[in-house]
Amino acid sequence: MSVRTPDPDSGWLSDAELAEIRSRLPLVYVEAIPVRVDGLGRVTEVGMLLRANQAGEISRTFVSGRVMFGETLRDTLFRHLEKDLGPMAFPLLPVSPVPFSVAEFLPWPGVTPFADERQHAVSLAYVVPVTGTCDPRPDVLEVTWMSSADAASDATAAEMEGGRGTLLRQALASVGCL
Amino acid sequence: MSVRTPDPDSGWLSDAELAEIRSRLPLVYVEAIPVRVDGLGRVTEVGMLLRANQAGEISRTFVSGRVMFGETLRDTLFRHLEKDLGPMAFPLLPVSPVPFSVAEFLPWPGVTPFADERQHAVSLAYVVPVTGTCDPRPDVLEVTWMSSADAASDATAAEMEGGRGTLLRQALASVGCL
Amino acid sequence: MSVRTPDPDSGWLSDAELAEIRSRLPLVYVEAIPVRVDGLGRVTEVGMLLRANQAGEISRTFVSGRVMFGETLRDTLFRHLEKDLGPMAFPLLPVSPVPFSVAEFLPWPGVTPFADERQHAVSLAYVVPVTGTCDPRPDVLEVTWMSSADAASDATAAEMEGGRGTLLRQALASVGCL
Amino acid sequence: MSVRTPDPDSGWLSDAELAEIRSRLPLVYVEAIPVRVDGLGRVTEVGMLLRANQAGEISRTFVSGRVMFGETLRDTLFRHLEKDLGPMAFPLLPVSPVPFSVAEFLPWPGVTPFADERQHAVSLAYVVPVTGTCDPRPDVLEVTWMSSADAASDATAAEMEGGRGTLLRQALASVGCL
Repeated sequence: MSVRTPDPDSGWLSDAELAEIRSRLPLVYVEAIPVRVDGLGRVTEVGMLLRANQAGEISRTFVSGRVMFGETLRDTLFRHLEKDLGPMAFPLLPVSPVPFSVAEFLPWPGVTPFADERQHAVSLAYVVPVTGTCDPRPDVLEVTWMSSADAASDATAAEMEGGRGTLLRQALASVGCL
Repeated sequence: MSVRTPDPDSGWLSDAELAEIRSRLPLVYVEAIPVRVDGLGRVTEVGMLLRANQAGEISRTFVSGRVMFGETLRDTLFRHLEKDLGPMAFPLLPVSPVPFSVAEFLPWPGVTPFADERQHAVSLAYVVPVTGTCDPRPDVLEVTWMSSADAASDATAAEMEGGRGTLLRQALASVGCL
Repeated sequence: MSVRTPDPDSGWLSDAELAEIRSRLPLVYVEAIPVRVDGLGRVTEVGMLLRANQAGEISRTFVSGRVMFGETLRDTLFRHLEKDLGPMAFPLLPVSPVPFSVAEFLPWPGVTPFADERQHAVSLAYVVPVTGTCDPRPDVLEVTWMSSADAASDATAAEMEGGRGTLLRQALASVGCL
Repeated sequence: MSVRTPDPDSGWLSDAELAEIRSRLPLVYVEAIPVRVDGLGRVTEVGMLLRANQAGEISRTFVSGRVMFGETLRDTLFRHLEKDLGPMAFPLLPVSPVPFSVAEFLPWPGVTPFADERQHAVSLAYVVPVTGTCDPRPDVLEVTWMSSADAASDATAAEMEGGRGTLLRQALASVGCL
């Protein structure tokens, strides 16, 4: 990450400060799994972001990001949904603030199903119906939609980073689609 | 209930048959608490039906009704929302089929917070955002909207039938508004 | 089922009456997935009942049964756990009455993940830690315990009746073990 | 807090460092509401800690504390339950890692129901049955138990710090006791 393009998640912290803190404190994150629903609220499709990581590898991920100081979880969710899916996605945020899962990303693998070598993140995960048109930000290659059956497959899980295949299955289970 | 206006909930059962079964088997019901939400998914208002019961007393209640043989819970929810709020209410059914509460209405009071002298009903309760215009059916006097603070008051609870004041508070708690 | 061994679930209904009702009304059921937990509440093993069905085929299932007229869900859960696992199983019933899933068993397959050719059952499903010794009733061949990884496998799902492989995965997802 | 009794929550951070971070990053907390349950899992009593704050005022609170770097939520819950209730409390941690509520404590009041002038804390709240004997740590005056009806009263809510009266009602709602 160059000096000129600061981490959009850095808040009031410099990159160096954030890097220092990341090695010493768990951070609060949100994770949003975008879905399309039919008129009865049934999930018909699951949205994923196709992204190139710093090593140039393509992987699938969800809308995800850090909670800033003083920011409510709803504001965080909305900010990251808008940033990753564009201003015309029209997400319907859940009425209940209780997540379907709490994903504990630890810097070392094997303790929980989730890992993130950069940091310890406690991420509150929500399923979010999206009613508009998605227009992903430049560093996201594409937003792809797949059926819940395809989403639940082992092949899809293998393409997801940090154990998010498990999170995807938990999301599908929570909406009765596993 | 006259011969000409059959119980809309009777399914393939005559009134006499249903009355007989009501004294011997628990029935499956759904309960929907209509709400208005803002752009961040926060509940701003709660909807209630004002209804005259058979004794001519006015009381407050929710959208509620029986699950028919072969009918899915989502179909039941949609059918009762449409019947009680009209075809232009545009309810957003929840993505998760798990209710925020299971209200056990017993024919005798005191065992659970809920009672219904007619029957034993196990009612799955959902909070349902409504985005359109409500046009209640003839036997409903009015759909009234109140703030979540007013909805949580003791005065409102006292006007609700069968212990639904408790259900309302459980609903408010589940959306972070208690 | 002979005249001398009445259906223990028949309540105040004769078998003929229950059979008649089963074709016309949804029934309320509970489903309990017995688990063993460690000192931190993590699920270590999942219990299943090995049972011969009326066709003489062996299949896996959970503790499951009908809610009787006037009976609370907690009483139903306790009654069926005791009946299927014996009086020394010492189950820890959940503090929250909200199920992790509502399984809709319909008499025809394909509408929901669950089917039961005998009836339409709406079944509230709970994960129940068991702390004692299981001593299954005569018509249950065995209570078997398996790791959550084995429980989540396709092979296990294939041995379960009525779509309960899906319910098992939903249960594992709800306890963070999928 | 004197030099000789370091903050037991400070982790690998000095008090000065933690104070600095507290003004710039949200911290992850857990909150545990201890309860007594009967044989059917119904909550019979709710436990609260009576504590003198730094101004010498007595207030009621719950078991609560910070998640350390690299620590799982279950380890955090167990550590704080043992610290606040003693080693013989024998808490039964929940099988599901999903909290009944996420309490957002902000440094300024009015945005959420929760406030903490020291910091922004995102606290995952759980109801935890306790089966043994509570022996609170020295700086806790007492562990008191009250019926759920008393716990739900306005008087109790007024004695709780940081909006935890709301959290208590959400807890009671989640176990069907409001």
